[in-house]
Amino acid sequence: MSRFLASIAVTLKPTVNDPEGLTIASALHNLGFAGVAGVRSGKLFEVAIEAASADEAQSLAEDMCTRLLANPVIERYHCEVGEEDPEEG
Amino acid sequence: MSRFLASIAVTLKPTVNDPEGLTIASALHNLGFAGVAGVRSGKLFEVAIEAASADEAQSLAEDMCTRLLANPVIERYHCEVGEEDPEEG
Repeated sequence: MSRFLASIAVTLKPTVNDPEGLTIASALHNLGFAGVAGVRSGKLFEVAIEAASADEAQSLAEDMCTRLLANPVIERYHCEVGEEDPEEG
Repeated sequence: MSRFLASIAVTLKPTVNDPEGLTIASALHNLGFAGVAGVRSGKLFEVAIEAASADEAQSLAEDMCTRLLANPVIERYHCEVGEEDPEEG
């Protein structure tokens, strides 16, 4: 068994209203960032997984998304699996 | 001026306690994911920026992190700037 690190990004689907993103965009404009055309907010999970292979870790990570981490009605997710960085502890 | 998309990941520093991550790890164990060794939670912002070049967009995105999006005392951030995907609208 090796340890893998799955980086899971969960974002709202493009058609779903994102009040947090709108608020952040407005705050950035108020701070003088005139070039900001839009902001979408999302969640990020870094999951350390013990698995036999990277493929198994990837499949486990996608299973976690559908069963707990993402709401498939309004959100989509993207999982990227890599070797765990030993510096991260 | 072109439009760029900055993907900004804001995560807690490794030494900072992350109760949300601990709760998610415990929920994943309860769902039968025995291989989960740890979970860290974070935030993700996708910022559409009008800028003259990718370098300018990168520098603006890092400025946004230090001034609004991240708390440098307990969080760290990572900005990645790319061309905006036209499919995303």
